[in-house]
Amino acid sequence: MEPQLRIAVIGAGYWGPNLARNFSVSPDWRLVAICDLDRDRAEGLAARVGGVDVVTDVDELLARDDVDAVAIATPARTHHALAIKALASGKHVMVEKPLADAGHRGRAMVDLASVSGLVLMADHTYCYTPAVLKIRELIEEGALGDILFIDSTRINLGLIQPDVDVFWDLAPHDLSIIDFILPGGLKPQSLSAHGADPLGAGKSCVGYLVLPLAGGAMAHVHVNWLSPTKIRQMVIGGTKRTLVWDDLNPQQRLSVYDRGVDLGLQAVDGVERTAATVSYRLGDTWSPALPEREALGQMAAEFAESIREGRPPRTDGEAGLRVLSVLEATARSLAANGAVVPVDERADEATRAEQLAGAL
Amino acid sequence: MEPQLRIAVIGAGYWGPNLARNFSVSPDWRLVAICDLDRDRAEGLAARVGGVDVVTDVDELLARDDVDAVAIATPARTHHALAIKALASGKHVMVEKPLADAGHRGRAMVDLASVSGLVLMADHTYCYTPAVLKIRELIEEGALGDILFIDSTRINLGLIQPDVDVFWDLAPHDLSIIDFILPGGLKPQSLSAHGADPLGAGKSCVGYLVLPLAGGAMAHVHVNWLSPTKIRQMVIGGTKRTLVWDDLNPQQRLSVYDRGVDLGLQAVDGVERTAATVSYRLGDTWSPALPEREALGQMAAEFAESIREGRPPRTDGEAGLRVLSVLEATARSLAANGAVVPVDERADEATRAEQLAGAL
Amino acid sequence: MEPQLRIAVIGAGYWGPNLARNFSVSPDWRLVAICDLDRDRAEGLAARVGGVDVVTDVDELLARDDVDAVAIATPARTHHALAIKALASGKHVMVEKPLADAGHRGRAMVDLASVSGLVLMADHTYCYTPAVLKIRELIEEGALGDILFIDSTRINLGLIQPDVDVFWDLAPHDLSIIDFILPGGLKPQSLSAHGADPLGAGKSCVGYLVLPLAGGAMAHVHVNWLSPTKIRQMVIGGTKRTLVWDDLNPQQRLSVYDRGVDLGLQAVDGVERTAATVSYRLGDTWSPALPEREALGQMAAEFAESIREGRPPRTDGEAGLRVLSVLEATARSLAANGAVVPVDERADEATRAEQLAGAL
Amino acid sequence: MEPQLRIAVIGAGYWGPNLARNFSVSPDWRLVAICDLDRDRAEGLAARVGGVDVVTDVDELLARDDVDAVAIATPARTHHALAIKALASGKHVMVEKPLADAGHRGRAMVDLASVSGLVLMADHTYCYTPAVLKIRELIEEGALGDILFIDSTRINLGLIQPDVDVFWDLAPHDLSIIDFILPGGLKPQSLSAHGADPLGAGKSCVGYLVLPLAGGAMAHVHVNWLSPTKIRQMVIGGTKRTLVWDDLNPQQRLSVYDRGVDLGLQAVDGVERTAATVSYRLGDTWSPALPEREALGQMAAEFAESIREGRPPRTDGEAGLRVLSVLEATARSLAANGAVVPVDERADEATRAEQLAGAL
Repeated sequence: MEPQLRIAVIGAGYWGPNLARNFSVSPDWRLVAICDLDRDRAEGLAARVGGVDVVTDVDELLARDDVDAVAIATPARTHHALAIKALASGKHVMVEKPLADAGHRGRAMVDLASVSGLVLMADHTYCYTPAVLKIRELIEEGALGDILFIDSTRINLGLIQPDVDVFWDLAPHDLSIIDFILPGGLKPQSLSAHGADPLGAGKSCVGYLVLPLAGGAMAHVHVNWLSPTKIRQMVIGGTKRTLVWDDLNPQQRLSVYDRGVDLGLQAVDGVERTAATVSYRLGDTWSPALPEREALGQMAAEFAESIREGRPPRTDGEAGLRVLSVLEATARSLAANGAVVPVDERADEATRAEQLAGAL
Repeated sequence: MEPQLRIAVIGAGYWGPNLARNFSVSPDWRLVAICDLDRDRAEGLAARVGGVDVVTDVDELLARDDVDAVAIATPARTHHALAIKALASGKHVMVEKPLADAGHRGRAMVDLASVSGLVLMADHTYCYTPAVLKIRELIEEGALGDILFIDSTRINLGLIQPDVDVFWDLAPHDLSIIDFILPGGLKPQSLSAHGADPLGAGKSCVGYLVLPLAGGAMAHVHVNWLSPTKIRQMVIGGTKRTLVWDDLNPQQRLSVYDRGVDLGLQAVDGVERTAATVSYRLGDTWSPALPEREALGQMAAEFAESIREGRPPRTDGEAGLRVLSVLEATARSLAANGAVVPVDERADEATRAEQLAGAL
Repeated sequence: MEPQLRIAVIGAGYWGPNLARNFSVSPDWRLVAICDLDRDRAEGLAARVGGVDVVTDVDELLARDDVDAVAIATPARTHHALAIKALASGKHVMVEKPLADAGHRGRAMVDLASVSGLVLMADHTYCYTPAVLKIRELIEEGALGDILFIDSTRINLGLIQPDVDVFWDLAPHDLSIIDFILPGGLKPQSLSAHGADPLGAGKSCVGYLVLPLAGGAMAHVHVNWLSPTKIRQMVIGGTKRTLVWDDLNPQQRLSVYDRGVDLGLQAVDGVERTAATVSYRLGDTWSPALPEREALGQMAAEFAESIREGRPPRTDGEAGLRVLSVLEATARSLAANGAVVPVDERADEATRAEQLAGAL
Repeated sequence: MEPQLRIAVIGAGYWGPNLARNFSVSPDWRLVAICDLDRDRAEGLAARVGGVDVVTDVDELLARDDVDAVAIATPARTHHALAIKALASGKHVMVEKPLADAGHRGRAMVDLASVSGLVLMADHTYCYTPAVLKIRELIEEGALGDILFIDSTRINLGLIQPDVDVFWDLAPHDLSIIDFILPGGLKPQSLSAHGADPLGAGKSCVGYLVLPLAGGAMAHVHVNWLSPTKIRQMVIGGTKRTLVWDDLNPQQRLSVYDRGVDLGLQAVDGVERTAATVSYRLGDTWSPALPEREALGQMAAEFAESIREGRPPRTDGEAGLRVLSVLEATARSLAANGAVVPVDERADEATRAEQLAGAL
């Protein structure tokens, strides 16, 4: 057994306690400190996880030699400053989603980690659930064939957030999952986002996101704070099989359908023509058993393993950046009333320059 | 009891037999003839509904004095020519969806019916189901309050149609229903449509349609031929209550949730400010009992009643036109790669003219 | 292709038309006549299936040489007399459930068919549905292992029948299915039946039937006319796997769970002891695809094939007798207030004689 | 605000921690001590609830003046001795289910509490869930009318208990709930129990319990350790409405169906006859909203309130006795191979004496 790595959790608000609890029971980690500006809150949390150190000054924390890594669970606008400081102090860093509040700041974090030889991990918790790990495995081994479409629905009567719209609140889950399961990650060229604010809340409460994927495939995300019923469902259509993930059905979360449509070329007068024959498969359905395991425990293990092996974690800073790019493009599409926008902002600017050039 | 009206069914293919069967048993109607170019097919159908006349020449049919109305169930490209002839012969007309294959031809049909004082009815069958009739009634009486959003899903492993894409195949159902239940009908200013053809079938097999409604509300339609599971669900969110229609759950098709979000104005320093308070309702759910009644029978009754009362039927030619306008705009948006397009084509042309003018 | 067998349907009431329609389109059969005391009813049915002969006198029908078999769909109390006559005239016979209104009369029918070398088939329609055929196949090939328990629920808001209780109305379905899928058929030594008549309808409207099976297994049937929700579910637990059949879920009627409990013997101090170790399997779930086929068509084919091959059909007279025995024992248990009674009535009498002898 | 009552929890095993946690946060209670023979276990629990006293000697605990009540969460065979001691020391007592391991010992506890003027409460936790409280309220106010039948299903792949069968493990939940919601409590005259042990585990793993109720109604309980699917459902049929409680559907736990059958007397020839007319109601369904509240918190409040008001708690010792009587009769019926047995054992003995007398 290798010696334990030592971690501190920065931020004792909503999410920090979950991280602290999991690191405190992980065989890979020793939780050494809780850091929060609010000493009472930090002490309360420290007591609940077995009496670790309490620190209110982050510089003091980062100066310590007995801390190998930090997990940052503070508001998004502080992620960049804290992560840069921590990386500069030689600590590995895990950051709660979203990675940063702007793409270029996230990029700076990723670059610093890279040149420093440190691990920067995005806290995409859902990716470590047994269901998502199994989906990734099935896609990797080719069980679904090529991906044709992904349709994700995450709707519920939800708390209207004061500072973010329904996309920034809920879609990071869908986007990080899609990024995780797609070989090569989520790299749409463009997207369109459609939001509705029918209550006059000053931000989208109902949202739809359309993401064209490579090869004519498409991903679609529906997020909604106003739905009286709760749905957490993702359908992933492939050339071989289609998978339905219903996260609210613990008795059958994953169903893999051997049903689908096959298009074949038809030889007409000895010439192969594009006029296709269509055939349908109506095969069995299969629901793989899933282990009962907490996602955060798996994520803590992956963080430790990536540090020990000197490799990027499964949800690395680049994954965080890809999700962030999509969220930023979403905001641009919304501002343009649902227009199709490129996901890479520089491409966007280039396009605008081209358009400008064309108009001249 | 008033004397029965006399009707002939034109077209004995897929849908005609359903119309013939319902008119033949309706107390309001006497079915007098089946008309089809294929005599065998017409005779087969005529025999199954009690031995009515068989006609292969539509002009001969329309020349008859003992026919008050015709129901047209032929391919969409023939609707215009047949309907115009029938109206010109003084017959009331019901036309299978879509009303016509182009908006201007549908408009000509509506105009001729209007000047002739004849009824032109769109065969929007779904609108006469007990579920949709109840939804319309609930919205009309204010049970839902103002409509905030409508989300409609109609997905299934479906037959890939040779001549139309998934929007023209499935969305007319959703659009005609939304048109029927919204006071004032479906009149979006603009829309965007996103389609995917991941199998290379030459047309969209997965489709999403975004329809901004008045007052910041939004309708969204998801149609899909590639889904292994069948979903027929519509969620209608209102300021007072939200309704979920699950057409595949015969034991509880409609659920009305007294749950939702209320935004209220807050008086700050004696001044009413837009800074809103948010409150949540978590009330009871109610599922109204629905009668067991076949929609086509209800539609036949409405056709007769509208003729007798000299009024437009509930799904009149204008309703058919509104659906057609949305389908045409859908095609334009798809051709423009998902761009937001105006629904009224003339507006579209005007916009283009403006753009052209601006570019000069 | 062998020549078609010729059949007549006796009884044109509720069920006869379904039989007539299926025989009329079966490639194995030629429907030659409809026989009913009510000539109008017989003629109406004959017209709907293509104009076959109409007969009102059953003796006249049975005297005909061009009839190989008859299907009897008349009230239960007439089954015995009609079947005996038909068998005596050398016709093969299919009889609607229940086989007869009393066990000894059913036995006489089976015996006459046997000595005459004719096929007597019980119309246990459910056994020919794709779901039940697949269940039988799975049990036969050992996929479930040994059967541990069968729990069948058939409840709905149902019509209170004037002449029979809820057991005789609904349980024949469950019993004939259990008889069909169990290797060796349904042969309980004893049973107990518990009925409730809380409305004072004069007969059981809610019923429970407990059937001990060989090897400590147990079958249980719940039938209910007073349930507001409809359930049609059978759970079949086996040593290897457990199967759940939900007939109201067309998207996943059958689910085979590789979950269960294993008991193993434990060697204690070198001696194998009955003190068992318990282990749990939590494996995958699998839902076999089922063809879309009408059960009555399959049953007509089996009737023809059994006649041609001179073998008993899958649901033969003996199967009908086994179901009848259980229904009769059910009535005896109900009369004895839920007491455990032997299924074989003669055993019952023997037991009583023994008890009497013991009391002397 | 009244002063808090002071309580100690005896037993720090499986259930004790839940009780301790709830009493420690209840406004009505001050948790003063944890008592367990195993000091380490007691100290571990005491630390987690804020550092209360630890006691290993129950006599020492009961001698304290600063303890008003005790909650006993030890093995069933110790309930009687501990409760008698506690009552004799003047403490109010709450006892985990079952009340005792034998009816006469439970009776002794109830009698001692009664003569001492102390509260003896049965820990029937389920009765304090929002769903069961609402069911009781609906029955009390007459919303369901007279009860016609109760059908309860509690099945799951469950742990085979070393010392009790599936009835003693699971049925106390159903029985305590039925006792709680029926006006007058659960008082069947007789019952029959049918158990199966198909794995040879030495005890029933599948069980059915039939309980005739007053007025021809019937309760039925199905408990099962071998089911691969989990069902927690109770159907309560009444003359006015029927209620379905699906505890695994958090979005709609309770459904009240205004559907049912009405029998009316029919006047024939001016004479009222029992031949009944049958009519059916097919009305709306209604699902009441339920508050989110932990049952144990409600139970702690009820315990405090009953002590302060000097009245029996809603689930008093008599309720515990009624459940115990049914469990004991269940064991007798199982031993008699499913025979109908009286619930009151003394009645049973009387019957046997009568039989004996009759046999002489």
